[in-house]
This record gives sequence, structure tokens and C-alpha cells, in this order.
Amino acid sequence: MRLHRVIMGIDPGLAHTGWGLIRQNGSKLDCLAYGCVTTTNDRPLEQRLKTIYDQIGAVIDRFHPTAVGIETVWLGANTTAAFATGQARGAALVACANAYVNVGEFAPNQIKNAVVGTGHADKHQVAYMVAQILHLDELPTPDHASDALAAAICYDMNDRIGHLEGKQVVNQ
Amino acid sequence: MRLHRVIMGIDPGLAHTGWGLIRQNGSKLDCLAYGCVTTTNDRPLEQRLKTIYDQIGAVIDRFHPTAVGIETVWLGANTTAAFATGQARGAALVACANAYVNVGEFAPNQIKNAVVGTGHADKHQVAYMVAQILHLDELPTPDHASDALAAAICYDMNDRIGHLEGKQVVNQ
Repeated sequence: MRLHRVIMGIDPGLAHTGWGLIRQNGSKLDCLAYGCVTTTNDRPLEQRLKTIYDQIGAVIDRFHPTAVGIETVWLGANTTAAFATGQARGAALVACANAYVNVGEFAPNQIKNAVVGTGHADKHQVAYMVAQILHLDELPTPDHASDALAAAICYDMNDRIGHLEGKQVVNQ
Repeated sequence: MRLHRVIMGIDPGLAHTGWGLIRQNGSKLDCLAYGCVTTTNDRPLEQRLKTIYDQIGAVIDRFHPTAVGIETVWLGANTTAAFATGQARGAALVACANAYVNVGEFAPNQIKNAVVGTGHADKHQVAYMVAQILHLDELPTPDHASDALAAAICYDMNDRIGHLEGKQVVNQ
């Protein structure tokens, strides 16, 4: 029995990195907290990345998640966007590695499937189902935080049905 | 007069992150050290990123550079490669930000121009000129380390001619 296990979700981005914490309480999921780290482009790149690293690290220190679910970014034709998001994701993942939490990566359609039941859903549908699953009185905002909570839910669901056996990563 | 100023160069990559340290001694440049952080793909992503972060941080702690030159990655059509390199670059830049060193970003052709005198040069030419400028007895290897030293030389040259006035970043 793993009661009260805390799982974090992260939706990385250079301008906005969403995060969310859920608690697995038996078969029930609760929301502990969620938020979004915003950095503005008038600051030097490495300081923006340090802010993401520091803030994600602070959230991990506060809630002590045992695992992190993170979206594998959809890599379209925009290499500049992929590169910027990659840098933010690198900063966030170092914070995770520093705390020795397990990291599970999920494709966008896996996450949507876990919360909405289909691999194709818009952000409002995701937010609506995240609120339902976590018994929230209102839709989580911004979308980045909602997507982070969805990634955490996806981790939990995949872990329960044993899909993470070969995917979970070290330091257990 | 900035005597004995130490400048670091970084050539980021998930599998290989090159680094190099040069010392500005009046008008002369010396090489202090160079190397390459290698991570293998049989390890979890976040652990590979943490290795880059830790190793680059350790080099900074040892040599106390006041500035870091880093290449802006050429973003071709390969978004997967851009994303992987972006994550490595994010990990390295957080290590820089933690140490409050200035970071200057340079395009590949700026770096080649600084060491070879033309924006188009192959890796051997770059390594050869890096060895000449830094009075090395042999060519620096691997290429990642050579490219990192070239980025450090580029930072120094641009700084001397005042090109970094608007580009240098905080925490001076």
C-alpha cells in the first residue's frame, strides 16, 4: 500500500513552467497545490533558467514528491521553440535529479488519454477533467498549471497499471 | 586593467559538453584547462543533465571564471536534436547562473570569425587556430573541448573591442 504518495507534474517552458502536486490517498486523488513559474524575456537567459530551477526545487523541497510526471514536448517544425523549451526542461529536470525523485516522461496524447479518455482534447477539456478528478471547485489556471496536474495524474494512472515498470528511473 | 581574468567556454550537448578555460594575461591568452563531460544514453535523462550541471559547476568552482562564452546552437531542421541540446544547455547555464558569472552567447560564425578570421571554417581549422592562439603544443581534443576554448576566445575578443557592452548579463 502506498498511501499519501505525492506526485508532481511539470509542464516546462521558458516563459511559463507549470507545476502541480497531487496526493494519492488510497484510490482517491487530491490536489495539494499548483502554480506557474513565469520568467520575462527582459532578463538574461541563464537567470530565467535559474529562476525555473530554483522555483521548481523550492516546490520539491516543500512537498517532497516521490515522482514527477513531465510531458515530452511536441516537436513541430519550430526548432527555435523546441530549443527554448528544451533549455527550460533541462533546468527543471536538474532540480528533479537533485532531489532524487523518479521522473516519468509522457507524450501529450498519453496525458490527454489519462485524464480525458482520448488522445485528442483541447486545453479546456483537460482542465475540466483535471478539476473533476481532483475534486476542485474551479478549473485550474493557467493552462500550464492544468497541464502539469494532468501530467501528474497520468503518472499516477500509468504507475497503478504497471506501465512504468520499465520506465521509472533510478534512485528509488 | 583586468589582469589574469579567467574566461570559460562551453560547447553544450547532451552526450558531450565541451568546456575550456583561458586566462587573459595582459594582451596574451593562456589555456588553463579543457575537457569534455560525456554522458551515455543508458542513463535516465535527468541524471545525464545533473551530471552536466554538477561537472560544469565543479569546473566553475575550481577556476572561478568571471565570464562564460557559449555557442548559440545552429538550429537546423532537426527539432529532436535541438531539444536534446537545449536541455543540456539549460543544465549548463543554471550552473553558470548559480555562480553569477557573465554569460555571452555567440553564433557559430562569430566564434569561427574570432579564431580563424572567417565565419566558415572546419573543426580542424578551429582546433589549429585555438592551439596557435593559446600556445598549445598539440591540438585540443575532442572537438567539443576545442569548440569550447574557441567560444572563450571569442568572448575575450568581443569584450576587448567593446562588443559585449549591450550583451553582457547582470551580476557584474
